[in-house]
Amino acid sequence: MDLDLAQKVLAEQPFSRLLGARVTAFGDGEATLELDIRQDLFQQYGFVHGGVVSYAADNTLTLAAATVVGPGLITSGFTIDYLRPATGEILRAHAQVVRAGRTRVVSRCDVSTVDADGQRTLCAVAQGNIAVIDAKN
Amino acid sequence: MDLDLAQKVLAEQPFSRLLGARVTAFGDGEATLELDIRQDLFQQYGFVHGGVVSYAADNTLTLAAATVVGPGLITSGFTIDYLRPATGEILRAHAQVVRAGRTRVVSRCDVSTVDADGQRTLCAVAQGNIAVIDAKN
Amino acid sequence: MDLDLAQKVLAEQPFSRLLGARVTAFGDGEATLELDIRQDLFQQYGFVHGGVVSYAADNTLTLAAATVVGPGLITSGFTIDYLRPATGEILRAHAQVVRAGRTRVVSRCDVSTVDADGQRTLCAVAQGNIAVIDAKN
Amino acid sequence: MDLDLAQKVLAEQPFSRLLGARVTAFGDGEATLELDIRQDLFQQYGFVHGGVVSYAADNTLTLAAATVVGPGLITSGFTIDYLRPATGEILRAHAQVVRAGRTRVVSRCDVSTVDADGQRTLCAVAQGNIAVIDAKN
Repeated sequence: MDLDLAQKVLAEQPFSRLLGARVTAFGDGEATLELDIRQDLFQQYGFVHGGVVSYAADNTLTLAAATVVGPGLITSGFTIDYLRPATGEILRAHAQVVRAGRTRVVSRCDVSTVDADGQRTLCAVAQGNIAVIDAKN
Repeated sequence: MDLDLAQKVLAEQPFSRLLGARVTAFGDGEATLELDIRQDLFQQYGFVHGGVVSYAADNTLTLAAATVVGPGLITSGFTIDYLRPATGEILRAHAQVVRAGRTRVVSRCDVSTVDADGQRTLCAVAQGNIAVIDAKN
Repeated sequence: MDLDLAQKVLAEQPFSRLLGARVTAFGDGEATLELDIRQDLFQQYGFVHGGVVSYAADNTLTLAAATVVGPGLITSGFTIDYLRPATGEILRAHAQVVRAGRTRVVSRCDVSTVDADGQRTLCAVAQGNIAVIDAKN
Repeated sequence: MDLDLAQKVLAEQPFSRLLGARVTAFGDGEATLELDIRQDLFQQYGFVHGGVVSYAADNTLTLAAATVVGPGLITSGFTIDYLRPATGEILRAHAQVVRAGRTRVVSRCDVSTVDADGQRTLCAVAQGNIAVIDAKN
């Protein structure tokens, strides 16, 4: 898999299209996903909804795993801790593989916002498990 | 807070409106949130995207907390384990408070799908922390 | 596996012997592990150390899985939330399987303390993943 | 707090003395805890018990927090993913603060083993929440 294929897979997810997500980096155990922050992704206080942040973490944890083991992956689960209200222009999730086994990959993810001046603010951290669903046993 | 107010708060979240979420039960340490499963909530395999399931868990964990401590809450973080592909007519998240402290509430959540025959299938479990942001210190 | 075998497996763990843990119930997707609270399991405030509580959660999550899929299991990971200081006579962890798949089991665990009057106090909740290491593929 | 005081606090934990843990680095948002691997910390397969690894993660996540906000901390909870069997001479946990708020700190931890040749192997990763219990409100 390369960036083009990763972007193509993402574009096949109707929910990722609904949120306007795009893959901006993909390779060597790392992946970055971004989406433009817009009003209909907000919660009631005018910040990006935690559900959008957790969507980004979930998808990027698994994208990072795909750089190592290819497609045929599914997120088993993850933990997310929100750190700050998410506000700005762009939501950017960056994940890195910690350990890629034969049937299971563990990744970590940082979710940040980027404001109009390009200033980045870390707003959540996640750690997750990805299952290799078509592992050749 | 009661069910009407909880539904009103949810309706003030643009992202919850985008997903079509509604509160269907609220009280005594428990809350239920539902949304109709529709094609633009899917991932590439035709199942509900994990990001939608985690959105439901996140919101419902905190709704359950609000039954005990009122509004002024924010999800600190949560863990989710996906159990089965989510497919059917309705996605239903049910959460229950485990422990409500003065500044922090811990809840658990079951996310199920309901098919056209009313058959319920558990598709994810979550456990989370909610911060009481306006705790009278 | 039955209770006797489960207790035998536990007794083969030097660390479980060091902590004085015993299996007190085992079957039908559920397991209970107990240990006597004693001074050298404490942290600096005179309560049971979180590491003892997390040991109990870890082991019991996997014991519950073993009631369904037998031995040959290993804890992949877990999340624990501490709820109250752990103090009393006995530390008791009770876990229940949520979903047993072919290669992965998800369980939940409640860790309580029991005081001299038999009064039970919930002090932590956990959710974990167990890998079936010798799954017949 | 400095390394001497951190080591003194650890020495006041009977359970940390039982496991033989020591603080080997402490400052600037980071902390390292080590213990000598010995037979009575094992599980039944001859590796360090997950409960020992999770003890090390728990304590080190909170030690890292203490470098930033001082004493008066308590671990709220954490997530741990085991990556490889833990074997060798020394178990070493290293944690780093991700975000220190007024009432809550989030840290991450890597737990490694070090063998007789000084070779380090990553065996678990954790992410946790620490409560500032005596926050001046």
